[in-house]
Amino acid sequence: MRYVISELYVGQSAEFTKTISESDVYLFAGITGDHNPMHVNDIYAKQSRYKERICHGMLSSSLISTVIGTKLPGNGSIYVEQDLVFKAPVLFGDTISAIVEITEIDIEKNRVKLRTYCKNQDGTIVLDGYAVVIPPKYVESRW
Amino acid sequence: MRYVISELYVGQSAEFTKTISESDVYLFAGITGDHNPMHVNDIYAKQSRYKERICHGMLSSSLISTVIGTKLPGNGSIYVEQDLVFKAPVLFGDTISAIVEITEIDIEKNRVKLRTYCKNQDGTIVLDGYAVVIPPKYVESRW
Repeated sequence: MRYVISELYVGQSAEFTKTISESDVYLFAGITGDHNPMHVNDIYAKQSRYKERICHGMLSSSLISTVIGTKLPGNGSIYVEQDLVFKAPVLFGDTISAIVEITEIDIEKNRVKLRTYCKNQDGTIVLDGYAVVIPPKYVESRW
Repeated sequence: MRYVISELYVGQSAEFTKTISESDVYLFAGITGDHNPMHVNDIYAKQSRYKERICHGMLSSSLISTVIGTKLPGNGSIYVEQDLVFKAPVLFGDTISAIVEITEIDIEKNRVKLRTYCKNQDGTIVLDGYAVVIPPKYVESRW
């Protein structure tokens, strides 16, 4: 799925939902090298403020990139900017919805601004922010 | 490695360097669901502005989390905020250094602000921004 800028409108939104598994977190730690014990050491995490291991903030943030890169604006989108505020921990087994909504469209520069946030299965917003994205052009959009 | 806030100073910095492999990008796509063809479709990518597949911006961004969560402030750090501006593409095989440097310390709130950026093997800054982080406390730091 993809939209070029002329097909986009303010208020348009899309989302992607995924239950975050232990294997997601451990693979993410392996890829990035971020073995912060908050994420991969259950004994340590039990003594921490959250009392259990939590997901990497950048893992749940990456689900925003999923919506942008595959749904809205979609395939071929290029990230320009992403601002993130982490509001609540994501626990193993949480089902996270990443939601993006277009707030501004600059046709001349071919850029859109989106509110981007993630909520868990209880409706708690776990992270909030905005993104600036270059939507795909037609030449990049035949797939 | 970890520093509590009394051990931190403005100008203190740390880094983590990794060559980004094709398998990193493909695993990241699998974990996040972000199969934007810019990342995983070589035929599509050849027709795009970059002429080849590029890494997910959020993958190189996550190396910043690695430095914060394992080096500075280190184990047990909690992410509060991350602002990212993507400045140049990261290609498969690029060697990316994520660098964080403390710019502000708020002892009363137990928070630090850091400049956070990534550069490639040629010294080109591929992304830039800042983070706000809660450093670990002693009780969380025995590992």
